[in-house]
Amino acid sequence: MGKGRLEAFSDGVLAIIITIMVLELKVPHGDDLGSLTKLLPVFISYVLSFIYIGIYWNNHHHMLHAAQHVNGNIMWANMHLLFWLSLVPFATGWMGENHFTTLPVAMYGMVLFMAGIAYFILARTLVKHHGSNSTLAQAFGTDQKGKWSVYIYAIAIVLAFVNPWISMALYTIVASIWFIPDRRIAKKMV
Amino acid sequence: MGKGRLEAFSDGVLAIIITIMVLELKVPHGDDLGSLTKLLPVFISYVLSFIYIGIYWNNHHHMLHAAQHVNGNIMWANMHLLFWLSLVPFATGWMGENHFTTLPVAMYGMVLFMAGIAYFILARTLVKHHGSNSTLAQAFGTDQKGKWSVYIYAIAIVLAFVNPWISMALYTIVASIWFIPDRRIAKKMV
Amino acid sequence: MGKGRLEAFSDGVLAIIITIMVLELKVPHGDDLGSLTKLLPVFISYVLSFIYIGIYWNNHHHMLHAAQHVNGNIMWANMHLLFWLSLVPFATGWMGENHFTTLPVAMYGMVLFMAGIAYFILARTLVKHHGSNSTLAQAFGTDQKGKWSVYIYAIAIVLAFVNPWISMALYTIVASIWFIPDRRIAKKMV
Amino acid sequence: MGKGRLEAFSDGVLAIIITIMVLELKVPHGDDLGSLTKLLPVFISYVLSFIYIGIYWNNHHHMLHAAQHVNGNIMWANMHLLFWLSLVPFATGWMGENHFTTLPVAMYGMVLFMAGIAYFILARTLVKHHGSNSTLAQAFGTDQKGKWSVYIYAIAIVLAFVNPWISMALYTIVASIWFIPDRRIAKKMV
Repeated sequence: MGKGRLEAFSDGVLAIIITIMVLELKVPHGDDLGSLTKLLPVFISYVLSFIYIGIYWNNHHHMLHAAQHVNGNIMWANMHLLFWLSLVPFATGWMGENHFTTLPVAMYGMVLFMAGIAYFILARTLVKHHGSNSTLAQAFGTDQKGKWSVYIYAIAIVLAFVNPWISMALYTIVASIWFIPDRRIAKKMV
Repeated sequence: MGKGRLEAFSDGVLAIIITIMVLELKVPHGDDLGSLTKLLPVFISYVLSFIYIGIYWNNHHHMLHAAQHVNGNIMWANMHLLFWLSLVPFATGWMGENHFTTLPVAMYGMVLFMAGIAYFILARTLVKHHGSNSTLAQAFGTDQKGKWSVYIYAIAIVLAFVNPWISMALYTIVASIWFIPDRRIAKKMV
Repeated sequence: MGKGRLEAFSDGVLAIIITIMVLELKVPHGDDLGSLTKLLPVFISYVLSFIYIGIYWNNHHHMLHAAQHVNGNIMWANMHLLFWLSLVPFATGWMGENHFTTLPVAMYGMVLFMAGIAYFILARTLVKHHGSNSTLAQAFGTDQKGKWSVYIYAIAIVLAFVNPWISMALYTIVASIWFIPDRRIAKKMV
Repeated sequence: MGKGRLEAFSDGVLAIIITIMVLELKVPHGDDLGSLTKLLPVFISYVLSFIYIGIYWNNHHHMLHAAQHVNGNIMWANMHLLFWLSLVPFATGWMGENHFTTLPVAMYGMVLFMAGIAYFILARTLVKHHGSNSTLAQAFGTDQKGKWSVYIYAIAIVLAFVNPWISMALYTIVASIWFIPDRRIAKKMV
């Protein structure tokens, strides 16, 4: 089965997710600076989520580039990842609108945590389908970066109840370590 | 006539349908747990519809993969299917917002019922175009699963007036039997 | 210059237009039949516009299938068509919400009129680029159907000030004559 | 690494940006001419932004057509451009709703300014990757048009505090000079 439509559908969903997030930036009625600065928390959470969706698109692109074929399980593992990512605009909007208070920040972490696990499942499903000696399998190896991200999200969710800004710092750190495209696959693919 | 743009357009519409459904999950103003739990019915209906659209995308993908060429009738049969699926976000939102009361649950079944019939018409149109000896025709056979789904939707619509939770159970059962990609075609295609 | 991205971009825009129109069908708060029947005018205008966008996608698909290459002028002629079609959701919503009164119905005709002219310009630009002896040029011929549609839209706009239901009938008639894919090109292409 | 998915994702995002802008044209409740003319400023700003996104899509198309391959840096430079363009609907809506007052007009210029710089960075990153002797590098040359656009945006932002209509005139002038597709690349590519 071809991977073309899986990529096209995922691109479509990710393109829509990244773009409808901006709809949470509601056009203010006033035209003064105050109306604009009031939107700052929503804007900051938009920037963070834009980077996260960008990272997912980038890594998804790399991973499927290394894949040769897909099956039903891979399709559903991919759909599962898209489901959690589809909740990012909601989590982003809730966090931004409430100025980074505990529950919305923990919830944002929860969505990232589930998306991280879904990405891990998708990677495992792909590796299983291609065999443990495939380029894909060797490239993933033990997937340290993926595992650590999920651990850090879990810690960030708990720490949101201490101080949500610690969680925000952790989300930013994870985004930074993923910002660099997945060198493991990139290296193997050249 | 190439099937590429038909697939691309369908992917686009399905990607948008699956993503705009999440807009019904309106960001609550409060940041407490209560604001979140109030969204639970909308969230549950979102999950169900996400799975349904995922199933349709999956089956649509399989069906068109088995097709070699398309014509004007196929295009309109496809557009007809997309029309009913485009009503899923509305039906989902109405059902979720009213906490699964009779009429919205029956209405949701109605949209599924019409989408099921539209899928059946699309399948027949494709089979007709490819001939009754084609791989596609043999793969579909008598399309028992498709027929049963439509019957169950019809029963679910009626039973919503007895107890909408029976209908919800039926929608979940149909989703489960479709969750497994269409083995008939998959088997023939290998 | 390749026509692939022009088709992909147009597919994307048309897929979004056709899907965001459904957002005008706002989820009602009540769960009774009355809340649903109140949406009927919006639903009817949605069905009409869905068919119109479907027709445009279908004809656009045929036309570009017959084209071999595109240039800057064609790109802008295409963008011009997409601009007018992007106003269809607005015109649809305004007409439906006001239950088919004069000005919204005339406005809807105006958008169709401009889209019709834009389609005509795109067709001419394509023919000019491919030469008057090309398959495309011969297939279009004098484009009677396109011209008549535009004339009827113009008449419908004027008659909306007499009785908007005459205009609605005319819009339905034009949709019917276009429903059949452009046989002229289809015939030549086989 | 293939450029196909980069183009597809960018097409998706640009198609969504150009289409969701029209959602700022909110369907008025009245059906008289007054309700329509009140929307005129929002409509004008929509037209301007539609042309700008059209220009970006057009130039993006040309630039990537001349590119042979992409890498991680190019992907992120592209994502950076899409980020600023994703703010165009917000800036457009704010400017239109406030009838072209100072701050919204300056803000609109700011988004164009940042998008212009992001486009410049993307062009530089592509040229760097393809080598200074590549067709791409020679085609871009010193990129006078790109540089001048950014300078004019900067001037327009400042002049918005004198008279926002001067800025609007400048935005229109820049749109006009870009309307013509990038002849430098087009010429080299033939």
